[in-house]
Amino acid sequence: MKGARPIKIVSTGKYLPKRISSNDLENKLSIPNGWCERYSGVKYRHHVTTETNGLMGAKAAEQALKKANFKLNDIDFLISASGSYDYPIPNQGSVIKSLMKEGNQTDLAAIHIDSTCLSFVAAFEIAAKILDGNKMKNILIVSSEISSKALNENNWETATLFGDGAAAVILQYDESGSSNFIKGAQKTYSKGMEYAMIKGGGNAFWIKDHPFEKELHSFDMKGKKLLRMAKKKIPEFMEWFYKDLSIELTDADIIIPHQASKTGLMIFEELFNFKQGQVKGTLEKYGNCIAASIPLTLHDFIESGEIKRGDLCMLCGTSAGFSVGGILITY
Amino acid sequence: MKGARPIKIVSTGKYLPKRISSNDLENKLSIPNGWCERYSGVKYRHHVTTETNGLMGAKAAEQALKKANFKLNDIDFLISASGSYDYPIPNQGSVIKSLMKEGNQTDLAAIHIDSTCLSFVAAFEIAAKILDGNKMKNILIVSSEISSKALNENNWETATLFGDGAAAVILQYDESGSSNFIKGAQKTYSKGMEYAMIKGGGNAFWIKDHPFEKELHSFDMKGKKLLRMAKKKIPEFMEWFYKDLSIELTDADIIIPHQASKTGLMIFEELFNFKQGQVKGTLEKYGNCIAASIPLTLHDFIESGEIKRGDLCMLCGTSAGFSVGGILITY
Repeated sequence: MKGARPIKIVSTGKYLPKRISSNDLENKLSIPNGWCERYSGVKYRHHVTTETNGLMGAKAAEQALKKANFKLNDIDFLISASGSYDYPIPNQGSVIKSLMKEGNQTDLAAIHIDSTCLSFVAAFEIAAKILDGNKMKNILIVSSEISSKALNENNWETATLFGDGAAAVILQYDESGSSNFIKGAQKTYSKGMEYAMIKGGGNAFWIKDHPFEKELHSFDMKGKKLLRMAKKKIPEFMEWFYKDLSIELTDADIIIPHQASKTGLMIFEELFNFKQGQVKGTLEKYGNCIAASIPLTLHDFIESGEIKRGDLCMLCGTSAGFSVGGILITY
Repeated sequence: MKGARPIKIVSTGKYLPKRISSNDLENKLSIPNGWCERYSGVKYRHHVTTETNGLMGAKAAEQALKKANFKLNDIDFLISASGSYDYPIPNQGSVIKSLMKEGNQTDLAAIHIDSTCLSFVAAFEIAAKILDGNKMKNILIVSSEISSKALNENNWETATLFGDGAAAVILQYDESGSSNFIKGAQKTYSKGMEYAMIKGGGNAFWIKDHPFEKELHSFDMKGKKLLRMAKKKIPEFMEWFYKDLSIELTDADIIIPHQASKTGLMIFEELFNFKQGQVKGTLEKYGNCIAASIPLTLHDFIESGEIKRGDLCMLCGTSAGFSVGGILITY
């Protein structure tokens, strides 16, 4: 298709910390038995015990390297793409790189890109555009997220929904195959900026002046407002996205939406006439892993063989900000 | 030059909060009179009173828009590029956009890029590569930094060095003029990852388990180790950066190094044979403003007429991570 770039997903990797069943969580948070799965649609999620964002990211990245039969030195650029992080300084990309086995022996650049839940999608689009087959042959994108620390156990809606985990993808400029990056875009609708926030912990509510408070330092989601906005903006975005392409959203072989929530996914499916099995997800087994949800789902369905070379794939979703975004690729 | 892209800096803007003289700071922090300027080389720095990163960024961005005679709607992509931020979620780009006058009426994408002090340089390189004169005609980069909150007043070295402030730059794909993006690169040397950190406040030292402690939540710099690493890596980086160009670093008309510190800048100047006035800086009047230092300096010297169209400019520096990076442009 017009404007397509010869970008190939060489390999993927993932790392998941300890698995927590809905039953475990219900017992831990004194939630009535069965509530968790019924309302959140999440059977299992993973929560860190000793892991950091950096460690999970490094492990996912090393798995992707191993599968590609690459050394870290074969990578030209490392992009950390997530909404959560280990330290305010330095950037999370540097942290992930430093925890990789060959991190200290290599000098590739490491930066961090944050578009909250769309961080992976945003980083993929940027990577696909800056890969040139010359100085930029291979880019490693790592999304590593810890949401379990910033959950308010009194807020069952979020406490049961989110999970931790990491996924990594190696992208390559490769003119020899049929893999392509076709199009990417994001739109940020600022009226929704306050619909999903962790308010405390940055400069606006500086820790010295604002010690830990459950509400202030936990993820707060205006669920109904978010859903209303998503319902309106997702179809507008998709119409606009596909306007100059010769196809529609439903022509994609595979659609991986951000695993936002059970209701969010239901609304997404109701908005379009998808075919059975066309939309892939991992909400049930991983929960919402912020920016790691899309690459985790991508990884699992590549591994299972359900995503095959040549498949037209749309990775898309919404994020705090409030944004809608997506990328269309041929795997 | 080979590989150059027709990228033009259309306009720049800045915002500075309240000015604090070294004398004011000495009185406030009980530092001996005269110590501040003598050791840090900083006469004035600015500290926020009521401002947030978002507000300062929005103001700098609006100044750049006004000078370009642009509406926000003329911008295709907003990149926040900084090491500090208002909220853990959403990303700082969304926050800046939402605080701009036309923020709610526009749907351009807003994301955040973090490479600590090199965030602006990293964002400029990415912007220059994704601008295409078609769907991406204009990109707004905003670096807004608050360092004054995370300073440990017992650590005179950092407490006197850092300042707050914001700068914004509009980049345009423009084939009609002589402005160019020639080259950009960054190298991350992970052995130095721990030489500059704010350890507390992210997931590694989560606020619930780690309440405010001066040391943990302040910027901590292993000054001597950083300087030793910079002394070794900057010349290596520059030699490598200029190897495939027909010129050397000292051939640039204007060199804007990150305003890291008085000693850092002295070492940088000692490493190369710069001409009088070739290296521009703002350390004396703004201190080290993290990623905002380079665009603030760029802004001021464009405003003063000392940077002129056609000038070959190198913007470069080091950042926590530890990274060395730079971009070479024709203004």
